[in-house]
Amino acid sequence: MNLRLVFKSIGLLLICEAIALIPSLVVALIYKEHNALVFFDTIGILFCVAVPLCMITIRNKNMYARDGYAIVALGWIFMSLFGALPFYFSGTIPSFIDCFFETSSGFTTTGASILTNIEAMPKSILFWRSFTHWIGGMGVIVLTLAILPSLGARGIQMMKAESPGLNPGKLVPKVGETAKILYGIYVIITIVEVSLLVLAGMPLFDSFIHTFGTVGTGGFSSMNASVGAYNNVAIELIITVFMFLSGVNFTLYYYMLKGNLTSPFKDAEFKFYLGTIAAAILFITLDINANTFHNIWESLRHSSFQVVSIITTTGYVSTDFEKWSMFSKIILFMIMFIGACSGSTGGGMKSIRILVLFKVMKRELLQIIHPRAVYSVRIGKKAVDEKTLSEVLGFFFMYIIVFIAGVLIVSLDNMDWGTTISSVAATLSNIGPGFGVVGAVGNYSTLSDVSKVTLSLIMIIGRLEVYPILLLSMPSFWKRVNI
Amino acid sequence: MNLRLVFKSIGLLLICEAIALIPSLVVALIYKEHNALVFFDTIGILFCVAVPLCMITIRNKNMYARDGYAIVALGWIFMSLFGALPFYFSGTIPSFIDCFFETSSGFTTTGASILTNIEAMPKSILFWRSFTHWIGGMGVIVLTLAILPSLGARGIQMMKAESPGLNPGKLVPKVGETAKILYGIYVIITIVEVSLLVLAGMPLFDSFIHTFGTVGTGGFSSMNASVGAYNNVAIELIITVFMFLSGVNFTLYYYMLKGNLTSPFKDAEFKFYLGTIAAAILFITLDINANTFHNIWESLRHSSFQVVSIITTTGYVSTDFEKWSMFSKIILFMIMFIGACSGSTGGGMKSIRILVLFKVMKRELLQIIHPRAVYSVRIGKKAVDEKTLSEVLGFFFMYIIVFIAGVLIVSLDNMDWGTTISSVAATLSNIGPGFGVVGAVGNYSTLSDVSKVTLSLIMIIGRLEVYPILLLSMPSFWKRVNI
Repeated sequence: MNLRLVFKSIGLLLICEAIALIPSLVVALIYKEHNALVFFDTIGILFCVAVPLCMITIRNKNMYARDGYAIVALGWIFMSLFGALPFYFSGTIPSFIDCFFETSSGFTTTGASILTNIEAMPKSILFWRSFTHWIGGMGVIVLTLAILPSLGARGIQMMKAESPGLNPGKLVPKVGETAKILYGIYVIITIVEVSLLVLAGMPLFDSFIHTFGTVGTGGFSSMNASVGAYNNVAIELIITVFMFLSGVNFTLYYYMLKGNLTSPFKDAEFKFYLGTIAAAILFITLDINANTFHNIWESLRHSSFQVVSIITTTGYVSTDFEKWSMFSKIILFMIMFIGACSGSTGGGMKSIRILVLFKVMKRELLQIIHPRAVYSVRIGKKAVDEKTLSEVLGFFFMYIIVFIAGVLIVSLDNMDWGTTISSVAATLSNIGPGFGVVGAVGNYSTLSDVSKVTLSLIMIIGRLEVYPILLLSMPSFWKRVNI
Repeated sequence: MNLRLVFKSIGLLLICEAIALIPSLVVALIYKEHNALVFFDTIGILFCVAVPLCMITIRNKNMYARDGYAIVALGWIFMSLFGALPFYFSGTIPSFIDCFFETSSGFTTTGASILTNIEAMPKSILFWRSFTHWIGGMGVIVLTLAILPSLGARGIQMMKAESPGLNPGKLVPKVGETAKILYGIYVIITIVEVSLLVLAGMPLFDSFIHTFGTVGTGGFSSMNASVGAYNNVAIELIITVFMFLSGVNFTLYYYMLKGNLTSPFKDAEFKFYLGTIAAAILFITLDINANTFHNIWESLRHSSFQVVSIITTTGYVSTDFEKWSMFSKIILFMIMFIGACSGSTGGGMKSIRILVLFKVMKRELLQIIHPRAVYSVRIGKKAVDEKTLSEVLGFFFMYIIVFIAGVLIVSLDNMDWGTTISSVAATLSNIGPGFGVVGAVGNYSTLSDVSKVTLSLIMIIGRLEVYPILLLSMPSFWKRVNI
């Protein structure tokens, strides 16, 4: 491990975090809140820690895969630790573990909360809480689609770290330029959504909060009843559309900007994502129309909002889906694991992986029927190589193992089945709300500290797609440290 | 598909089933029950159906993998359909769907029951119900360790069908001889257990019933409270030991008979099986000692019985583990999926597969740390080839997909999370009792007919290790039918 390189990179990340605190400081000044000082202090602390780290001289400029994993894993943990300080200093969240949970939940764009009365919080604190979603979402996109492929191009196996998909592909040769285009797309989507929400009648501050939660597929709201508080179909529709858009691979927007407007419909993952959403909406609409709302439009309204909210791993809530029948809840639970598309801000296993797994399954069965035939697994027109297939299969197993390990630890809280299982699924796939105690109208406040710390780590494990954090736990990862 | 061969083979299986009904007929005569007629009728029907099937002349003697899968899949389904007749004719189970559920549960050695008052049933009916376990268990062993490897040796890819493990290995060159040795071991274990149970004070009839349930790792009891009804530590200890022994690969007994007494301790799967059991007993003992029994011996007694009962997929119950805390229940739920060893009568994914999956996971992580090193996955001293690894990974995904599909259908019954999820896990892995409504003191009687038929098929899917039944559902499996 190239420790100097790792720590210098983390220093740079913390400087970025300090800069990212400035908008919240401005909000505090605008609303004349005492918390201005809190943000000022945190920025100061970040500089005190980060500047010495940035001054480390790097002796060996070679960056290997394990260094990349270490930067990503430790970076996310340290950003969550320092990002928790404004909550702690302001006294709005008294326990530091709760502060860490809320901040991990923000940066990983999960949206799971320990707050019981969100509306009582100072505006600047709410702004920082939601801004972490926006930063987290952008971080994932830029890392996935710009920085990592570029490192990969230099012959370093970095694709696995932080890569939500199989093959994000290089957008343009230069990292800086790619990152700029992605920032641009991300910012444009943000501005458009804020404007539309204001037009639909949402207050400006709330529009920012909900836009950060949407484009980052996070899910923090400024209201206790989440999006349901506005009971406004236009607002729900806008948020549904933007959640959907944020769950799409951002590479497709780049191609569309370049004039290839039909590119999404040539993309196998996009089609699978669309098909899964359509099927889930159909079944849930039929179920809740028959058993809950007895009104087809009301059923369609809430089923489409909830399905898109959960498959994109946003986690906004338009109605208390805890009251729906088990069939609808199981469908929502299933799509928690599928998640959004690779190269989006969404979490979960990603649609492309699920699609590949189904194709591998079909091939296995065909192979038995026709033992002498040779089948390859194709995504679009391209055959996927065997090594990638075996990585996707391995990823599936690891994801399930992390899920099971999490359930085992959370089960120590002795809660019901729904809460125990869904709290881990909803954090691992970066959704936020689950079922039972942590359901649509619930929160994570009553969980034990052990569970909160576990779930915070599980959010980071899920966000970074399992490998980086698991590697940190292996002794041989730390051997041969190179200082 | 060689339909003639398939139907002739099924005819032979049904003749075997008719013969297997004779002991129950004898029991009915001994206890002077009216049901003698019921068994007589069923035997008659079986002969009427089976004899014409057996008279089919086979034009093409070549047997391909898909024919093998079809025989195994359809054979298990038809045996369950005809085996349900004594329950139906006797009127002891009024609904035919319930009869089919109970018989599938028997032949697949699951032990899930729709009976609400077992003790009120006629003895001969109880005998047939438990005897299906004994036949099912023997069928699995002989198919796995004798017939299939022999077909494999003739160049036919049959290993996958009905093979609970990776590589059962050929015991002796001739099928008939192997089968005889296995019958011998199976019968000896049966006789020893019956004798010990009688010595421990269990009535002779009950001893047979519980021995069939143990050696077949089935779990049907003659008592409503299962093994707990006797509240006898000696009986529990005997059953625990024999459940454990029935979950071991029978090949190891063959080696031990040949004088290699330490062979189990050289077997990687056996060591993993033993280690998992020890760990699960340790954690559950500590948990239930602290939260339920407050007595270390009582805790150890019930935790060891329940852990062995569930990991071997038997499903006997010594106490109402539904009342235990969530941590213990989650451990039991986890080991439901692991299951027993390959080449045993137990179900589940099998210890060897889980061991392989963990080793693949470790290799993936090591590969990232040392990208240039070449790692192979070793079981014992042998490296497992990549094709087998990829099959095990694919099997894991298919198992989970069947589990999820089952949960989705059962969720239509709108029961609680614990019942919905565990009913599918407990049938897929051929255990029997789950949690909630289908828990230790519950049963499957209140489920809808749709759920009962689904779970019956899921038992067969689990018993035959997923592939055969999934193949039946593929259109291309039925193409190119060769009559």
